[in-house]
Amino acid sequence: CRVKLPKYTEDDSKYKRILDIFKKYDVRYFFYNGGNDSMDTCMKVSAYMQSVGYDCRIMGIPKTIDNDLALTDHCPGFASAAKYIATSIMEVRRDCSVYSKGSIIIFEIMGRNAGWLAASASLASVTGEGPDLVYLPETVFDIDAFFERVAKIYKETGNCIVAVSEGIKDKTGRYVSEYGSDLAKSKDAFGHSQMGALASYLAAEAKARIEGCKVRGIELSLLQRCAAHCASETDVEEAYMAGKTAVTSAVEGNTDKMIGFERVYKNGKYTCVPKLFDLCDVANAEKTVPTAWIKADGEGMTDEFIEYALPLINGESKVEYENGLPRFARLKKVTE
Amino acid sequence: CRVKLPKYTEDDSKYKRILDIFKKYDVRYFFYNGGNDSMDTCMKVSAYMQSVGYDCRIMGIPKTIDNDLALTDHCPGFASAAKYIATSIMEVRRDCSVYSKGSIIIFEIMGRNAGWLAASASLASVTGEGPDLVYLPETVFDIDAFFERVAKIYKETGNCIVAVSEGIKDKTGRYVSEYGSDLAKSKDAFGHSQMGALASYLAAEAKARIEGCKVRGIELSLLQRCAAHCASETDVEEAYMAGKTAVTSAVEGNTDKMIGFERVYKNGKYTCVPKLFDLCDVANAEKTVPTAWIKADGEGMTDEFIEYALPLINGESKVEYENGLPRFARLKKVTE
Repeated sequence: CRVKLPKYTEDDSKYKRILDIFKKYDVRYFFYNGGNDSMDTCMKVSAYMQSVGYDCRIMGIPKTIDNDLALTDHCPGFASAAKYIATSIMEVRRDCSVYSKGSIIIFEIMGRNAGWLAASASLASVTGEGPDLVYLPETVFDIDAFFERVAKIYKETGNCIVAVSEGIKDKTGRYVSEYGSDLAKSKDAFGHSQMGALASYLAAEAKARIEGCKVRGIELSLLQRCAAHCASETDVEEAYMAGKTAVTSAVEGNTDKMIGFERVYKNGKYTCVPKLFDLCDVANAEKTVPTAWIKADGEGMTDEFIEYALPLINGESKVEYENGLPRFARLKKVTE
Repeated sequence: CRVKLPKYTEDDSKYKRILDIFKKYDVRYFFYNGGNDSMDTCMKVSAYMQSVGYDCRIMGIPKTIDNDLALTDHCPGFASAAKYIATSIMEVRRDCSVYSKGSIIIFEIMGRNAGWLAASASLASVTGEGPDLVYLPETVFDIDAFFERVAKIYKETGNCIVAVSEGIKDKTGRYVSEYGSDLAKSKDAFGHSQMGALASYLAAEAKARIEGCKVRGIELSLLQRCAAHCASETDVEEAYMAGKTAVTSAVEGNTDKMIGFERVYKNGKYTCVPKLFDLCDVANAEKTVPTAWIKADGEGMTDEFIEYALPLINGESKVEYENGLPRFARLKKVTE
């Protein structure tokens, strides 16, 4: 592919500003960390530097819990979020199991267009404590069929644990999360749209549709993307590897690449090796969950997904503790 | 105090059923685990057994994240929930600090009438990563003053992290959680109103009142009471001690007692010893957070609270992991 300079029809002052700072400090290596949008930004910075003839090696380093970057097997960050989600679901299932009256629990999990994180809820199934139902944006969500399934499982087993991606859509392509805000608009006397969140909307619907049920909506919100105390050791090690590879590759003369991962099984055991991809092949592309990994009924994940994701959450990060609380690294902010 | 048999104006069939099972299996020791309501139940069972002349030693074992049982220094369960809450707040503060535009984050924390758990959010302050504001049900909540404070802190520091107890009340004694909805009409098994939706209500209000702010309400929901992967080692050890003490004390001839904890400082170091309290002194009493431990402005906790709670969250429980997920003990359900 060819890196093309984006058209600055309005304003390139931000790029000029970056160039000024690069020149001032003689910056010749630039590493940019993030997901799809960040890889796009990274590519644009590179394109700009090329267009003005400023020599700088520019590398993208993946980091997104969404796990939706193209070409790479997976992304740093995803596995730790996945581990937290699966662990939390196991714990809540256990919590529900101790009461004589069970619960319907609806977890809302991040992922607007790619359902990797909601899918990771199903990892808890390997311990027998996973969700009963998992819904991704990759399939069509039918709210009536959904509540029929929930009611049936609740009636049969006493509990029903559900994981839904925030981005589930109906057959018209409409986000289910929008159902609630419309409802709130038409009903709310206070002028606040409290029902906007998907989990609380589905929980309220469950209460209305399934007689006498106990129900809770749990939005994992920011917790799922920052729970460093529950990070995957594999993920942490691979994240370091990605950063290190970016530096060594740039020093060797590479530019306009993103570090990605390739999965290699050695004697049946998962290993991960770094690999360079062209930035422009990655920027703005979005990798969704393969349809083949979603069960035919659209309500859960196949063994292929479990085989894919389970090795990634292996091991526990060695968080240092002080006074019973994690001690995180603190970087001093350098202001110009 | 005297254990009095509750009046069974309607139906004592449940107690008779317990008696039948006790007789059938020759049960002579009965241990009941829980909080206020459970201690009340435990006392009633004991009163019933006495009234029918069935010889049985009956002990209450405290277990409540609410930490609101009378007489005991603290309750098993509280510290692990406190550790999870403080850790989560640290992590979310860190998450917010990486963006050029900061956030207002409102955490809703369990505790209807006693604010121990919301107070424990302030433990994160010892690392400098605690909440800016903490509100308990023990003080009067003024929603206008609240948003003035939030707006000021957000403007000055770029972020504002708030921890509110689900049970905060205004000067008329009305739950703030009732402002936005009539969710509180639904009752739980003990006849208490079900809380929830406070965080999303306050978040929506913040959005309406503070121009251009980025805001999120995070309800810690069930997660805070079942996050065994983040349990306090001190808490886990003390929980075992409570159970063990209950058994040895009953075998020694005690009955109608609840095991409690007494705090003893040895060379300035926190230690905890078990102590027996009369069940009827504990049943249905509720210990709230001492007013002296709440800052005069009602917006945070004093050092006395930190000194009280910090030793309790010390140490990390040794959760076993398998395939990257916790391996919890599984007890087989014995059905009659």
